[in-house]
Amino acid sequence: MPGQQQRKPTSAINQQPLADFKVGVDNVIFSVDITENRLLVLLVMRQQEPFANYWSLPGTLVRQGESLEDAAYRIMAEKIRVNNLYLEQLYTFGGPKRDPREACDSYGVRYLSVSYFALVRFEDAQLITDGVTGVAWYPVKDVPQLAFDHNEVLNYGNCRLRNKLEYSPVAFDVLPKMFTLNDLYQLYTTVLGENFSDYSNFRARLLKLGFLYDTGVKVSRGAGRPASLYQFDADAFAPFKDKPLVFI
Amino acid sequence: MPGQQQRKPTSAINQQPLADFKVGVDNVIFSVDITENRLLVLLVMRQQEPFANYWSLPGTLVRQGESLEDAAYRIMAEKIRVNNLYLEQLYTFGGPKRDPREACDSYGVRYLSVSYFALVRFEDAQLITDGVTGVAWYPVKDVPQLAFDHNEVLNYGNCRLRNKLEYSPVAFDVLPKMFTLNDLYQLYTTVLGENFSDYSNFRARLLKLGFLYDTGVKVSRGAGRPASLYQFDADAFAPFKDKPLVFI
Repeated sequence: MPGQQQRKPTSAINQQPLADFKVGVDNVIFSVDITENRLLVLLVMRQQEPFANYWSLPGTLVRQGESLEDAAYRIMAEKIRVNNLYLEQLYTFGGPKRDPREACDSYGVRYLSVSYFALVRFEDAQLITDGVTGVAWYPVKDVPQLAFDHNEVLNYGNCRLRNKLEYSPVAFDVLPKMFTLNDLYQLYTTVLGENFSDYSNFRARLLKLGFLYDTGVKVSRGAGRPASLYQFDADAFAPFKDKPLVFI
Repeated sequence: MPGQQQRKPTSAINQQPLADFKVGVDNVIFSVDITENRLLVLLVMRQQEPFANYWSLPGTLVRQGESLEDAAYRIMAEKIRVNNLYLEQLYTFGGPKRDPREACDSYGVRYLSVSYFALVRFEDAQLITDGVTGVAWYPVKDVPQLAFDHNEVLNYGNCRLRNKLEYSPVAFDVLPKMFTLNDLYQLYTTVLGENFSDYSNFRARLLKLGFLYDTGVKVSRGAGRPASLYQFDADAFAPFKDKPLVFI
């Protein structure tokens, strides 16, 4: 979000009254369907105006006595069942006119959105429906026009995801415990695109890092020769946890 | 900011009315005094309650029609004159009870703070005073108890700064155009602490990256032999701008 260079004169703004806000949280929850190589995002169908019948990121408005994080976890508990959900704050979107509710019966109240991010294991996650509200894992590349500025929030989340894949071992949170190097490569390709690296460079780089160990187990898939199953070695990684490191 | 695991039951919270907010912006502006090897943060003395006469991060409340970024730049324009100030969003702090104004005459209004971050060149920056409000570059290691939760915000900013030094060429934004490798090492040591790397490893690593070129000019400082002056080669770095990279 680059800062704009043209701004209103300070003196004029200083005469304006303070803005009143309602604060929403919106969650960008990604998953990867490993078997189909699809990057997915959790969307819900809005039931009310504005943007009734549009897909949106799962979100809610913060209530009295509730922290931002509590609100973010509250809405997730209504939409998805998953182990160890950890929401990370993403970005705060708060410009004027980002929500059509500001225009109508809001008495000048603005709507600010604090977004949160998570990557969850597809097999562990179970969607919850209240019988009325649609909820779905949507392929990121097919996402339609969303409610509010949620396409922008989703794009921002996608950048964070790519970044985390590059600088952290987050991939191993979504892969099965044992995986082939090709599974890992497919996951990276699914998120980063086909051209991020060729397979042999990727393989060499990952093995050189020293956080993967060969379990000795081999699997046959299709016509090729059997592939080794690897595991992520969290103990070997531990000393590097807070060190600057590039994964790929 | 790890998510808490103990949360209020969803059903009880769902009965609560929506919270009303005022939204503030607070800026964590760092600089490095190269000659003294001090990491500095810009603080202002508060003139009114709550926390009158406490040092605080320069901040303000968002006004009607004003974006978060506009508010952040507005308060900076009142405190400091600097070329090409670029504020980056840091984190949003919004828990209940983070501001004592919530308790008294606020009619239940909560105060949320969106923090912004910048690193500016010490020599280029000029403090502005209105004749009443104190403003100062404060050595980070000597920062006293600040107003509100600003020590926490500052800590968060310090983590971001360390992170940026590790993964990006931000150091060259604050160094003079020509510098010795020892100047660069001192800057890193000032921010990351004495033990981040020994000098010879640091030197080898930085030269290997290929973004520094020897200007051929040498300077004598003190008793040692003359040292080469280097420049950051922005053109050589350009192709790597969006690639994962570790600087040190």
